[in-house]
Amino acid sequence: MKVAVMGYGTIGSGVVEVLRINKDRIAERAGEPVEVKYVLDLREFPGDPMEDKIVHDYQVIANDPEVGIVVETMGGVEPAFTFVKAMLEAGKQVTTSNKALVAAKGAELIRIAREKNVNFQFEASVGGGIPIIRPLNCCLTADEIEEITGILNGTTNYMLTKMSEEGAEFEDVLKDAQAKGYAEKDPTADIEGHDPCRKIAILTSLVCGRQVDFEDIHCEGITKISATDIKYAKAMNRSIKLLASSRKVGESYVAMVAPFLLPQTHPLCNVNDVFNGVFVHGNVLGDAMFYGSGAGKLPTASAVVADIVDMAKHQNVNIVIDWKEEKMELLDYKDCTNVFFVRTAASKADAEKVFGKVTYVEAGISGEIGFTTEAMTEGEFETKAEELGILNRIRLA
Amino acid sequence: MKVAVMGYGTIGSGVVEVLRINKDRIAERAGEPVEVKYVLDLREFPGDPMEDKIVHDYQVIANDPEVGIVVETMGGVEPAFTFVKAMLEAGKQVTTSNKALVAAKGAELIRIAREKNVNFQFEASVGGGIPIIRPLNCCLTADEIEEITGILNGTTNYMLTKMSEEGAEFEDVLKDAQAKGYAEKDPTADIEGHDPCRKIAILTSLVCGRQVDFEDIHCEGITKISATDIKYAKAMNRSIKLLASSRKVGESYVAMVAPFLLPQTHPLCNVNDVFNGVFVHGNVLGDAMFYGSGAGKLPTASAVVADIVDMAKHQNVNIVIDWKEEKMELLDYKDCTNVFFVRTAASKADAEKVFGKVTYVEAGISGEIGFTTEAMTEGEFETKAEELGILNRIRLA
Repeated sequence: MKVAVMGYGTIGSGVVEVLRINKDRIAERAGEPVEVKYVLDLREFPGDPMEDKIVHDYQVIANDPEVGIVVETMGGVEPAFTFVKAMLEAGKQVTTSNKALVAAKGAELIRIAREKNVNFQFEASVGGGIPIIRPLNCCLTADEIEEITGILNGTTNYMLTKMSEEGAEFEDVLKDAQAKGYAEKDPTADIEGHDPCRKIAILTSLVCGRQVDFEDIHCEGITKISATDIKYAKAMNRSIKLLASSRKVGESYVAMVAPFLLPQTHPLCNVNDVFNGVFVHGNVLGDAMFYGSGAGKLPTASAVVADIVDMAKHQNVNIVIDWKEEKMELLDYKDCTNVFFVRTAASKADAEKVFGKVTYVEAGISGEIGFTTEAMTEGEFETKAEELGILNRIRLA
Repeated sequence: MKVAVMGYGTIGSGVVEVLRINKDRIAERAGEPVEVKYVLDLREFPGDPMEDKIVHDYQVIANDPEVGIVVETMGGVEPAFTFVKAMLEAGKQVTTSNKALVAAKGAELIRIAREKNVNFQFEASVGGGIPIIRPLNCCLTADEIEEITGILNGTTNYMLTKMSEEGAEFEDVLKDAQAKGYAEKDPTADIEGHDPCRKIAILTSLVCGRQVDFEDIHCEGITKISATDIKYAKAMNRSIKLLASSRKVGESYVAMVAPFLLPQTHPLCNVNDVFNGVFVHGNVLGDAMFYGSGAGKLPTASAVVADIVDMAKHQNVNIVIDWKEEKMELLDYKDCTNVFFVRTAASKADAEKVFGKVTYVEAGISGEIGFTTEAMTEGEFETKAEELGILNRIRLA
């Protein structure tokens, strides 16, 4: 099996490395040796073992009938989409680690793959090395998935873990994460939640079988989380985690990305550092959770290569993925019910006047009070919060 | 798709129930409606919705060309093996939840299925509802799996959790577990570790591609764990869990079922109550963990029905499972290296004379001392333990 890798960055070079490290095992599993024939990149790589395989024109790959599987690890929607579409139309199978591409064009590329009797797979696009796409598609098929909730961004999970362990402030842990290479120079996609938002859009699409647009998902990042919030969390014996979550409500879904306060009994509560976890609740399965390395060169490459093996075993057989292009209209998150932890400089009397029954949380912070509310809709909460005037609020999971 | 269920006990009736509850979703996923045509059982079930479908002779099922998939939920090796073999030879696909059958005859039934171009699947035989068999076979294919360790028995995990939370003694929590229906009247298979031993034999066979006999695996139960051990565990900030574990050593594996002391940072440490968890370490993936309901009617049935859906999608296509009949000779567990926690009535001076450098654990227990050893082989440890005279010992994970 001859493979081409498009994009020789961290993940692309990881794929080449995994194919080399576990060559024999992979050949055994795939039923034949898997060999890289081309690496597409704008750059040259003098001295690199792949030096002779570098090409700059994707048409070279599309036009070579010997290439059966193409790996897309370029990132971004374009030109990745144009290249991937061309590969599928040329009858090649494609695997990608590119969440932006899958979130935007997944349904269309799945349809094209089906029409061409090839496969388009994307295990590495969510949760890095954690098997979650294939389990959703092939394992949890007896269930109605009523909830899927993930810690899907390693950078922010590292930061929140660090804040919790050291009592540090957001700005300081961000600098530390940047120094360690976990966070990028422009950390917006991570800290504002855009990255997990695309990932939960992909997972929700797979769960409901229709297109969920990430733009429709209410998305909050972790920039408002402070050392003071962490103190209150500890007083509640809870952890603050950035969750990307979808819940089935009637025939539709409500989805959200936001920080939540998790109790110790929640399976995601102990997912720390750069690790990711995906919690699933099925109507007959009950609770399940998948945990592992959500990013990183080799773990992510491991998921890409698992796709290669699966596709090598399914030549000329389309593996049905139930994700239609028809759009799923999500419910308005404002109708979604939550319990809120609130910090305010207002008095207890005012807090109770506005919110009714509240439960105070004592964390030894002066000049403010902290309390949890009863369950109420997001819309109701916003009205009340505006009336009272608040310092911050975090939802309880 | 017409299905027959052999064995109308807890799991068998659960399968019928799941097929009914999620009928439409399952039909969509399987590509056609899935309908139960026969239920094989020795008993009659007057008044049951399946009453008219009960048959007593498995040949009725084997000889009906309309039946495409057979579910085996009888338990035990015989007559389950005879029936399953007959079904495969009649060209039917089979799924089973029966760990005893899979541990003893898995490789042979996989070979027969391949020869007949049908499938033999067994997702529910390990970890109940947790997807682990199919992920090992289809998802973690890019990796050399260097370790697979599970909490694979819900009954003993419930008991250990209860002992830890309440400081109760073994005999008392056993009675409670029996009263709640988690433990059987004869609890031997659970508390002596025979059940997780068969399960780790199955997982290790899948990881190495060869037959691992459960009789070759060193197996200890939880009967020697006392409230005093739990106190020491708390002093070490660790949890005691019954682990079933395999590690790759050179070209072979060493496997063991025994209680271990886990640190809070271990992904299995917070798997509590009747839940199961499977930890996997791959050479490129790193750490991963799968968590969920390890037993119970509907979760286990969910896994069986997922097999039905997968097989309905793979009619006349054999899904390769790499588990050959050739036997894998496990390494002698006595050569395996561990760190041990030891309790003894001997003096500190004697403990140090025998074990050299030790680290004492203070749990306020009078008349004895507790300490952890340096890493040493099981064989070395046994010699030293005999020399010193010990009250109990638990390995550290």
